[in-house]
Amino acid sequence: MISKNTAKFIKSLQIKKYRQKENAFPVEGAKNVLELLKSDFVIHKLFLTRQFIERFDKEVAVGDFPHTVVTETELSKVSAHKTNNAALAIAEMKRNEGIDFDAGEYGIVLDDIRDPGNLGTIIRIADWYGIGKIICSESSADQYNPKAISATMGSFTRVKVSYQPLATYLPGLSMPILGTYLEGENVHRFDFPETGLILVGNESVGISPSLEVLVSHKLHIPRFGGAESLNAGMATAVICDNLRRR
Amino acid sequence: MISKNTAKFIKSLQIKKYRQKENAFPVEGAKNVLELLKSDFVIHKLFLTRQFIERFDKEVAVGDFPHTVVTETELSKVSAHKTNNAALAIAEMKRNEGIDFDAGEYGIVLDDIRDPGNLGTIIRIADWYGIGKIICSESSADQYNPKAISATMGSFTRVKVSYQPLATYLPGLSMPILGTYLEGENVHRFDFPETGLILVGNESVGISPSLEVLVSHKLHIPRFGGAESLNAGMATAVICDNLRRR
Repeated sequence: MISKNTAKFIKSLQIKKYRQKENAFPVEGAKNVLELLKSDFVIHKLFLTRQFIERFDKEVAVGDFPHTVVTETELSKVSAHKTNNAALAIAEMKRNEGIDFDAGEYGIVLDDIRDPGNLGTIIRIADWYGIGKIICSESSADQYNPKAISATMGSFTRVKVSYQPLATYLPGLSMPILGTYLEGENVHRFDFPETGLILVGNESVGISPSLEVLVSHKLHIPRFGGAESLNAGMATAVICDNLRRR
Repeated sequence: MISKNTAKFIKSLQIKKYRQKENAFPVEGAKNVLELLKSDFVIHKLFLTRQFIERFDKEVAVGDFPHTVVTETELSKVSAHKTNNAALAIAEMKRNEGIDFDAGEYGIVLDDIRDPGNLGTIIRIADWYGIGKIICSESSADQYNPKAISATMGSFTRVKVSYQPLATYLPGLSMPILGTYLEGENVHRFDFPETGLILVGNESVGISPSLEVLVSHKLHIPRFGGAESLNAGMATAVICDNLRRR
């Protein structure tokens, strides 16, 4: 059973203000909750359906975590999605810490990515391509937004996201900054440096002027047809794929 | 002004049943409507805000098309989105026709892509990479769904989409079929044939068994980190980018 007060609490966490106040965020869906259970996140509450426990208990020993058994109907009522037939957890947010890079490492920098779904997709892409660190401008979407978490398909547990004032923070990292543009060096022929930051601009206006001055390499993805642009997630996937071909 | 009856009609077109009955679909947002005006689609109705006309009249002679001037508030009321401050058109759907491929041409085949946003994104990717033809299984999302149209950013005017029973239709095309899998030949080292069909599977279960038997080349995108998969749109973008490097 989910009490009225608990339901109200869970739903309040869909809003950033309440997530910050409680220092907690909701994680939904089978894949995301499974990955959460395997991670080092602190879990405050866990609601599981019987189907979820039966289906996944061998994989993660789900039943060993303190949990409340709930029905699909109860879960869907407190869900950010239309339906949730699996699981919901309330986990503790991690502190916003600075990021250090090792020699030979790559990171992704997001300049004002506003759509939480795009942010989540980019976290998933980073994880696929073995990039474990993302630095976001402070105006970017919140990594703990339910839509972002949902789009990561569990990758939020492996990719560290840090919010920083980019214009002053990036120079301190002393790394090459590769900006993605509609013109610039052809990424198919680009010789990627040993280490670097892939800078992705805002969905409508691209990379802001205050960051453009920091870009050491302007890259573009060659276009063969009529579309004017690729979206931020697609562009990131293509750049990362070109990086990893080296 | 948008009359009560017209408003009702426009909103009804958000539902497939009514689009089919009326053979018409709504197109929203500045970019999509601009591309529509430049295309060969038949336009039944056109609602424009003053801001839109002033901003884009030089680009397309917007004001020469028969239109009704409306306010942003009126437009948002009939919109599938939260707000629409630009334009809305009702256009005629095209007939579902078969697709022929020229020598050296590539096409994309979608096996049960259910999310209209994913379909729209893939249409935009195809357009970027100069692929003008997509064949969808009959169970795939509707190309005229407002979320699909919105995600195409105008590319729906350039990419032809055809719905066919894939298992019987594809063999008739006599083209190599390149399936995207989590294992198979590494796409970074794959020697793409002169012509081919890139087959993308369903978001959860991948390529169906009835089509798997038709696949002539199994391809995979190399993974470098912890994510279990890439989403259908990202995988399509990466495969197309690898194709065009040839």
